[in-house]
Amino acid sequence: MDTINRQFRLAARPVGLPKDTDWELTSEPVPDPADGQVVVAVEYISLDPAMRGWMTDRRSYIPPVAIGEVMRALAGGRVLASNHANLEPGEHVTGVLGVQEYAVVDAQAVTKVDTTQASLPMYLNTLGMTGMTAYFGLLDVGRPEAGQTVVVSGAAGAVGGLAGQIAKLKGCRTVGIAGGEGKCAHVVADLGFDAAIDYRSEDVTAQLRRHCPNGIDVYFDNVGGSILDAALANLALHARVVICGAISQYNNTGPPTGPANYLSLLVNRASMTGFIVMDYQARYQEGMREMAGWLAQGKLTSREDVAAGFETFPATLNRLFRGENTGKLVLKV
Amino acid sequence: MDTINRQFRLAARPVGLPKDTDWELTSEPVPDPADGQVVVAVEYISLDPAMRGWMTDRRSYIPPVAIGEVMRALAGGRVLASNHANLEPGEHVTGVLGVQEYAVVDAQAVTKVDTTQASLPMYLNTLGMTGMTAYFGLLDVGRPEAGQTVVVSGAAGAVGGLAGQIAKLKGCRTVGIAGGEGKCAHVVADLGFDAAIDYRSEDVTAQLRRHCPNGIDVYFDNVGGSILDAALANLALHARVVICGAISQYNNTGPPTGPANYLSLLVNRASMTGFIVMDYQARYQEGMREMAGWLAQGKLTSREDVAAGFETFPATLNRLFRGENTGKLVLKV
Repeated sequence: MDTINRQFRLAARPVGLPKDTDWELTSEPVPDPADGQVVVAVEYISLDPAMRGWMTDRRSYIPPVAIGEVMRALAGGRVLASNHANLEPGEHVTGVLGVQEYAVVDAQAVTKVDTTQASLPMYLNTLGMTGMTAYFGLLDVGRPEAGQTVVVSGAAGAVGGLAGQIAKLKGCRTVGIAGGEGKCAHVVADLGFDAAIDYRSEDVTAQLRRHCPNGIDVYFDNVGGSILDAALANLALHARVVICGAISQYNNTGPPTGPANYLSLLVNRASMTGFIVMDYQARYQEGMREMAGWLAQGKLTSREDVAAGFETFPATLNRLFRGENTGKLVLKV
Repeated sequence: MDTINRQFRLAARPVGLPKDTDWELTSEPVPDPADGQVVVAVEYISLDPAMRGWMTDRRSYIPPVAIGEVMRALAGGRVLASNHANLEPGEHVTGVLGVQEYAVVDAQAVTKVDTTQASLPMYLNTLGMTGMTAYFGLLDVGRPEAGQTVVVSGAAGAVGGLAGQIAKLKGCRTVGIAGGEGKCAHVVADLGFDAAIDYRSEDVTAQLRRHCPNGIDVYFDNVGGSILDAALANLALHARVVICGAISQYNNTGPPTGPANYLSLLVNRASMTGFIVMDYQARYQEGMREMAGWLAQGKLTSREDVAAGFETFPATLNRLFRGENTGKLVLKV
């Protein structure tokens, strides 16, 4: 094809917060699709905290992005050309398309989505991996029961905001932890949490004690660090701590801070469990159907924070780590 | 009664390792038993790492021992006088008798034991709380399956030695971590572990990698600290980390060291769960029956480390925290 594809490639393994020099912006012609492949014009790129982990050369649940490789990212776009019977030009798809303007991928590696039902950013958010992470992490790992107290960190973020809303739909008292007055107001007013704690200006341990007088039954953690410790200090008997992420630790140059209060697990006969959303692939249909139903009934707010300009990718990604996004951060290409 | 009872009472809340001045040795006449009570001549006192936690004024699974109170301890002894139909003088019992020579307690608060079947120290060890801790902690919380790899820290200690033996009986590959060459030899030669790692002279992370090439399926932790971190660095997918104790942290004057590698729970979809043996009270009969059966068949080694002299209690207790015991430490009164 004649079209030129711009791509962000990993130029160096970041130390701490990724720097501009950790990226290389390259251009190359879009290759012709092989049999079974499609060419997708990428329209929205999902920016996720997990991307920081993919940049580090360490054994994890998937291999790291290699130096010189196009940065891995979930994204959504429009099919430009297709060599597969199941996809037509003009249709929309989501998948691991990478941080680039055009992706040539196997048709079977992408998911067709109906943009008359929901926007492409929503398919990257509530109706995509983000939504599935909140749904299965909360319900399957956290197992909240009606009447219990659920605390969510990163509550103004993409996964946290959904996890708290789902907890509320299941009849739980929900308390969110977020950074700043504006985010805390959003969490209560727009997302319907019962209370919010501003970790930038409040004593999280004391506020958790105040808002959770009977202790925390489910703590859904997206942040790690001192906030995880504050939650551990306030567990109820038989509490479940769900380890979804630890964004406060991802740019540490030393080892992460371990939770000093982990012996609260013993005192409270509690558990701390990690999960990876990809393990729930066989049940995505179930999760999508329920999330779509709640959206249609107006019971769930899908909040996207759309940044524009492909070339802003390095700076926009870092907004996640600085806590500057509210809702799901996506980059409009 | 005319008899004089010597008692160790908590004189001060210890900072770090308990000092002699944290204890007061008192004497008082043994009171007459009230209706339903018995007088027990204490013969063996169980020394347990958990006792350090009971000395600290902090919310936990039971209230702390008050300053001036007789130190709480499990113990076994002989009934001297009884005001309850179910117990006769001369019979043996175990229960929370405290660090004292004579205990006046409700008959219903003690358990009658048959010393023709097993010794009193064994009733404090394999056939008592120690055995139940290993049994339910390993089988119910850890849920090992035949062919899996089970790692136990404090493997030459009372609970750890039993947990590893039970794992082996269930068809698991068992690796013990202990301090010193002698303990490691004991763990393999006497207790039948497949391998032992000497944390005092070996790199635990590297040795775990060597001895657990497919990762750790169940890690039964009695020690916390850097050994917990080494185990977390070597988990298999879906591993279960059982938090039984953290003896390396009990005498810290600052906050405990949290496990810096806790995000291994996420990468490996693993869980870390605490438990308290008392929660299994309704199932003690089941555990005792199985442990007694294994003992009778010669499949289980019950190792007691018997120290003598009531007045040595403060120094003998500290042997636990210095790692100087092999097997169950009991004090012969």
